[in-house]
Amino acid sequence: MTDRLAAIDDHIEQNLEARMAELGQLCAIPSVSARHQAVEECADLVAEMLGRRGIHAQSLPSAGHPVVVGHADGRSGRTMLFYNHYDVQPPEPLELWESPPFEATIRDGRLYARGAKDDKGELVARLAAVDALLAVDGGLPCGITWLVEGEEEVGSPNLPAFVEAHRSELRCDGAIWEEGGLDDDGVPVQNLGVRGLLYVELQVMALARDAHSGAANLLPNAAWRLIWALATLKGQDERIRIPGFYDRLRPITERQRQLLELLPSQEASIKESFGLERLLLDRTGPAVASATFEPTCNVAGLVSGYTGPGSKTIVPALATAKVDFRLLPDQDPWEIADQLRRHLDERGFGDVQIEVLGAERAALVDPDAPLVELCRQTAEEVYGQPARLVPMIGGTTPMYLFTEQGVPVVAPGVGFGHTNLTHSPNENVRLHDVRDAARHIARLLSRFSET
Amino acid sequence: MTDRLAAIDDHIEQNLEARMAELGQLCAIPSVSARHQAVEECADLVAEMLGRRGIHAQSLPSAGHPVVVGHADGRSGRTMLFYNHYDVQPPEPLELWESPPFEATIRDGRLYARGAKDDKGELVARLAAVDALLAVDGGLPCGITWLVEGEEEVGSPNLPAFVEAHRSELRCDGAIWEEGGLDDDGVPVQNLGVRGLLYVELQVMALARDAHSGAANLLPNAAWRLIWALATLKGQDERIRIPGFYDRLRPITERQRQLLELLPSQEASIKESFGLERLLLDRTGPAVASATFEPTCNVAGLVSGYTGPGSKTIVPALATAKVDFRLLPDQDPWEIADQLRRHLDERGFGDVQIEVLGAERAALVDPDAPLVELCRQTAEEVYGQPARLVPMIGGTTPMYLFTEQGVPVVAPGVGFGHTNLTHSPNENVRLHDVRDAARHIARLLSRFSET
Repeated sequence: MTDRLAAIDDHIEQNLEARMAELGQLCAIPSVSARHQAVEECADLVAEMLGRRGIHAQSLPSAGHPVVVGHADGRSGRTMLFYNHYDVQPPEPLELWESPPFEATIRDGRLYARGAKDDKGELVARLAAVDALLAVDGGLPCGITWLVEGEEEVGSPNLPAFVEAHRSELRCDGAIWEEGGLDDDGVPVQNLGVRGLLYVELQVMALARDAHSGAANLLPNAAWRLIWALATLKGQDERIRIPGFYDRLRPITERQRQLLELLPSQEASIKESFGLERLLLDRTGPAVASATFEPTCNVAGLVSGYTGPGSKTIVPALATAKVDFRLLPDQDPWEIADQLRRHLDERGFGDVQIEVLGAERAALVDPDAPLVELCRQTAEEVYGQPARLVPMIGGTTPMYLFTEQGVPVVAPGVGFGHTNLTHSPNENVRLHDVRDAARHIARLLSRFSET
Repeated sequence: MTDRLAAIDDHIEQNLEARMAELGQLCAIPSVSARHQAVEECADLVAEMLGRRGIHAQSLPSAGHPVVVGHADGRSGRTMLFYNHYDVQPPEPLELWESPPFEATIRDGRLYARGAKDDKGELVARLAAVDALLAVDGGLPCGITWLVEGEEEVGSPNLPAFVEAHRSELRCDGAIWEEGGLDDDGVPVQNLGVRGLLYVELQVMALARDAHSGAANLLPNAAWRLIWALATLKGQDERIRIPGFYDRLRPITERQRQLLELLPSQEASIKESFGLERLLLDRTGPAVASATFEPTCNVAGLVSGYTGPGSKTIVPALATAKVDFRLLPDQDPWEIADQLRRHLDERGFGDVQIEVLGAERAALVDPDAPLVELCRQTAEEVYGQPARLVPMIGGTTPMYLFTEQGVPVVAPGVGFGHTNLTHSPNENVRLHDVRDAARHIARLLSRFSET
């Protein structure tokens, strides 16, 4: 290791406590995008934090929540784009948190809070890298453009229009996305693909008001209507029954198959983490890793009628379901929404209203792009082994906004360990993962500037 | 009308405001049995109110909420039992109430509050009748035994054992139940039957905790499991698919059929009340009145995963449904619960847990019993026309505890108008209906004492 890199690593280590304080400040703002909560406040704080580093940043309006865009020039003419988001998932169920979700608490080498990892922690790791580069080199090795949105957790509904309107400010030679992480055994992973998303709210309003259930065989029941409608979408075989749903699916390529085969099995850890004896459909072996190449239809929420303790005998007037579909390349979320509408109509469920709450396309990165290879090597410098390439992850981010527009390479895969309880109670980040991610980013920017 | 009856009617009228104040006091106690809320307090107040009339009353312990039992002798050796309940349904959804549910408010000749009709209002109407009889006659015409329970709205789970243990104190020659009422056109109705009830909570715990929905094709989803399980219980044809469910159903008798044919259609008013163009299964004409002779399987509540605003992408760990079955004579709720368990097991839903929250048998009254005829006549004196006989109502009360034990006659049908919004927001009672019910009860007790 060069003296310069040693100095950078040392700077990150020495300032880790200060960065955790900044992370705590960010996590104290309950920027739950689903509830439009504290989003301006959080965007302002992010812009201020970037500004402190000499990154000229502004919280800009979008059709939804504000988007922070920042830029700083570097020594080389090349520019790296950082994508992050300042919004978080709702904290519920609150009773399962061991410390308050919006009060960062450090225990056993981890910082606990909603957003600790996803994605405030990742943002802070990048700040730590920038700080170290500025302190040791007196400047940035390459230009940095920062894009920090506030609607990632609700499907980035307004980001496409925002990016379109700000293409010139967002021009870049590469991009570092959120997500990625470490395997169970500490091996870094680099994601080459994310699934798309269609998130819908289905609603049935069957009656003007709830009724006494003595009239249950005279009155339509919103809960039953919704149950029957949902049961037509997917059976216990997990096959999605919406006509046309699978039409655009591409087969897994030979290259993707090879990459899948190199991945260690996550079967045991998933089973342990969720208290399961077997996975869905008894998936085992290679079928676990390749599951991300299949789309899903997931009921994320369901509510109707009386849900309190004990009993109440009513025919519910209203029933609502939240359903998310994870999609693969070439599946268009808006086309799927149309297919869903047609399917429900054809099955006699014209009374089921659909509201689209999120629509994003999948994205794929070329495994042979130079930045992918560079990122594998820099990962090796930090973690002792080159990054494993994951051809497709289960989740969704709006990476397609750059991959589809010819941004030459996009390299995710500088995240944290897998035990972060992302989206769950007790979300947390390991302090040394923030440190290592910062070290990795600093190396990646340095090497990227030379290419 | 005799001078005595005129004096009784006058007493009721003159004291109606004072009785409404008592009803307001009762309704101010949020005795929601589903939440075990304020039940001791409400039972104590009922006992105190009975005591004020010289009815020796006590709030007695049961395996659940306290039961108030009161008794007063009368001039004849015959005893009438009054059944009432002091508990109420939960008030939700709160935002639909025009005045607070536990703050009685009089508007346009109606008193609004949870329990205004069901069943605190009916209790107060009986108190008004007792007051008038005591004032005018100086005593009661017959003995009165009062049974006021606190778990009717949760299926009276502990009443059977209580009644069994207090049979001698509850001995009676007739009983006046709750419920009954007036038709749309002001004609009194007298109910000859109530359906039974099986109320169950179904629950699936699929995961140790909610998961990110990126893992939806690896993890079992509690909401999907519950949806699929529920969909096996009943299809859109409304036919209940639990094997054996219909086995014990008796056909409608000729006498019941005749009584049904005499009933005016409620089709138009139900449609109007619930904003419907057509009733379930396009029921119309005689099929509306006879619906109560068919059992039901009703989803009264449903909850799983994220139910807040916007979107959250999770695989829910837990899903719960509340399901009530309305049953007919000879359908045993515990046998149905066994059939449900077996059905779910056979269909592969051993993971769906069943908790029985309520189990009551149906009850039938002989249409030719003398008290039934007497009640028709006294109704005519008050309402200008004899009571219509309704062979079976949609709802459930634990009347079977007396009909099955050979109490010779049970005569429900001294309730109020149908626009009470029972179990719904803005439950209310018309003041003049309380007055007329009191007048009716006073006549019924007087004539009953002579038979």
